[in-house]
Amino acid sequence: MSTVGILGGGQLARMMALAGAPLGLRFLVLDTVTDACAGQFAPMVVGDYTDPSALAQFASQVDVATFDFENVPAQSAQWLTERVPVFPGPRALATAQDRLAEKTLFRELGIPVPPFAAIGTLAELQAAVQGIGTPCILKTRRLGYDGKGQFRIKTPADVDAAWAALGAQAGHVGLILEGFVAFQRELSVVAVRGRDGEFRAWPLTENWHVDGVLSASLAPAQVEDALRDTALGYAQALAEALDYVGVFALELFCRDGELLANEMAPRVHNSGHWTIEGSETSQFQNHLRAVLGLPLGSTRMIGTACMLNWLGQMPDAGAVLAEAGGHWHDYGKQPRAGRKVGHATLRADSRKELADALQRVGEALGLQGQVAPVVRALESAG
Amino acid sequence: MSTVGILGGGQLARMMALAGAPLGLRFLVLDTVTDACAGQFAPMVVGDYTDPSALAQFASQVDVATFDFENVPAQSAQWLTERVPVFPGPRALATAQDRLAEKTLFRELGIPVPPFAAIGTLAELQAAVQGIGTPCILKTRRLGYDGKGQFRIKTPADVDAAWAALGAQAGHVGLILEGFVAFQRELSVVAVRGRDGEFRAWPLTENWHVDGVLSASLAPAQVEDALRDTALGYAQALAEALDYVGVFALELFCRDGELLANEMAPRVHNSGHWTIEGSETSQFQNHLRAVLGLPLGSTRMIGTACMLNWLGQMPDAGAVLAEAGGHWHDYGKQPRAGRKVGHATLRADSRKELADALQRVGEALGLQGQVAPVVRALESAG
Ligand SMILES: Nc1ncnc2c1ncn2[C@@H]1O[C@H](COP(=O)(O)OP(=O)(O)O)[C@@H](O)[C@H]1O
Ligand SMILES: Nc1ncnc2c1ncn2[C@@H]1O[C@H](COP(=O)(O)OP(=O)(O)O)[C@@H](O)[C@H]1O
Ligand SMILES: [Mg+2]
Ligand SMILES: [Mg+2]
Repeated sequence: MSTVGILGGGQLARMMALAGAPLGLRFLVLDTVTDACAGQFAPMVVGDYTDPSALAQFASQVDVATFDFENVPAQSAQWLTERVPVFPGPRALATAQDRLAEKTLFRELGIPVPPFAAIGTLAELQAAVQGIGTPCILKTRRLGYDGKGQFRIKTPADVDAAWAALGAQAGHVGLILEGFVAFQRELSVVAVRGRDGEFRAWPLTENWHVDGVLSASLAPAQVEDALRDTALGYAQALAEALDYVGVFALELFCRDGELLANEMAPRVHNSGHWTIEGSETSQFQNHLRAVLGLPLGSTRMIGTACMLNWLGQMPDAGAVLAEAGGHWHDYGKQPRAGRKVGHATLRADSRKELADALQRVGEALGLQGQVAPVVRALESAG
Repeated sequence: MSTVGILGGGQLARMMALAGAPLGLRFLVLDTVTDACAGQFAPMVVGDYTDPSALAQFASQVDVATFDFENVPAQSAQWLTERVPVFPGPRALATAQDRLAEKTLFRELGIPVPPFAAIGTLAELQAAVQGIGTPCILKTRRLGYDGKGQFRIKTPADVDAAWAALGAQAGHVGLILEGFVAFQRELSVVAVRGRDGEFRAWPLTENWHVDGVLSASLAPAQVEDALRDTALGYAQALAEALDYVGVFALELFCRDGELLANEMAPRVHNSGHWTIEGSETSQFQNHLRAVLGLPLGSTRMIGTACMLNWLGQMPDAGAVLAEAGGHWHDYGKQPRAGRKVGHATLRADSRKELADALQRVGEALGLQGQVAPVVRALESAG
């Protein structure tokens, strides 16, 4: 019976433990806080990710380690790698932790990206804004998530405000300037690669963000086969280049039929939560299968599915539970403004039924705005 | 956030906790042994079901209580009921705990049963064997499971051996003699009833037992609509008579197109394990929804599914995990002869694909005998 160690004890670790239990696995979670929500279903070690004694205690009790939180310091990941198998490996982690390394690799692999430039000083920022043009986005290279650590530069006049907001981080985590992509759609590939190199992807997902945070996902995204194949090709090329093991997500902008890579997440991903009910094998179980060297499960869809994120606090569960294809996910967290506290997945056999269910849920919860773009997507394309 | 207490910490409690986590529930399991497999994913109180301090500790920490193990002493269930809501209630439990009360109720409700008689003495056994005829089965009224506490009487000459085997239990748990039913098929209805009386059933399941223990289940069972409606009607009548809340199973023999009720299980049931992947809402989640007064989830099937029980020790997982619709359930138990240690569910969109997958798995694991009757059922009718 293997014990899987998970660095980070949030909802991703929690859903991983729930998905891994049927494989006969045990789990141990390392997190900095005692009330990490994965701790409700798995034993924990509480300590900082750089605390040698916490790391040692963790390492001594697990057969293999993986991540719920990708920003574990590289040194800690390296230390662990010398003691237990860690998947994904340090190279994939290091690349995904740094937007500059990530975009540089994308470009090397022939994956189109928005224009970007490394920024160390205000002068470099001024020059880069001139070169790339406005609008553009200044982002921290490291440690950003859910739109945090970003400043949108609409006109050159915003440069000073951007520097005032993020300039202090230029030395510490680094900065990158990216051209703003006036995309029509955001898509993600959620895929898994086994220890033996086998690669599988779930159907393409369309995503809607609000204030930089995922709000809704729809699968399968309605795209032409050629576009889908291009997206899957990018994901596979990336996974092979990194000798990646486990589940990851590649976030793409789609502008005028062209794909531009935004970032990769070296872990199970919010845009893959619908796979729990919407596909034969969830991203959580397939991640564990990959990490353990077991055969990968089928990624085929079961019908069509939409995931709605719950931020801040859980809405009333009644409307979702009353839907035939309604599935509720409460992460067991304390409410807090902007915090990801849960999600719902609506599954249906047809796009029409899914749209109708979303309408009902949106109205019942007063969240018409959250469901509207998904309903529009379902009702448009054929 | 509610805490659900579960009396008994076996695989049923374990799968209930895994299914209830997404509802934001917490669990507390009461079991007599420290290594009960549900304890790997839920906190435990260890103590006897009659131990007042264990019961008090348990009751003080839960908002509602339910069962993994239906043979909790009636007095303990009663004590709990006076302190926390307990579902199913004491009356349903008491009825299902006693084969005589159960069959008497079935008969009262117009649900056909094999001939039966209460047995207190050897003379009563001799008379009943004459009255009912051979073959027949002597069973303990209480505490039997997985075919334990049964003696098959093939000819009147077996009466003394039957009495030698079970007579000592006549006073303690009581005995019942039942006519042996030369059935062609065994079926079960797995159904759920809410606190508000709403009733839903999953599609009928066909079951195969080996030595009194469930070996394989197939859903949907291929039966005529009228037979199915009759079976569902029996289950609903029973649930209403008992004012039942939660999931239960009604086991039926089908002989020459006629249904005879065997027993009911007042809990989630082994013949409903396929609902985890094979239906929109699993029996485990629907049991919790019922117990908590939440809307019941859809019981519609997704394709067709077969569950194979693993007894004694887990086979190698590879063959099942390699199937597109293969799902593995290792309960995290120590191997022991005859013990239910896990199961696999194979799901497919068509009966043909399911039969093919079963054949492959049966051959890979050397378990052709276990899959053969299911494959035959899939290949015949339909
Ligand atoms: N270059 C860009 N052009 C247009 N929109 C962007 C760009 N970068 C980020 N965004 C928007 O902000 C969201 C979050 O930014 P992202 O770089 O993915 O950061 P995070 O790591 O926080 O997810 C994106 O999903 C997208 O909606
Ligand atoms: N009266 C009967 N006639 C024929 N077979 C029976 C009879 N009673 C039990 N069996 C067989 O033994 C199995 C287990 O018996 P059951 O009464 O259901 O006890 P348990 O509580 O152990 O499940 C049944 O599923 C059936 O295969
Ligand atoms: Mg992103
Ligand atoms: Mg039985």
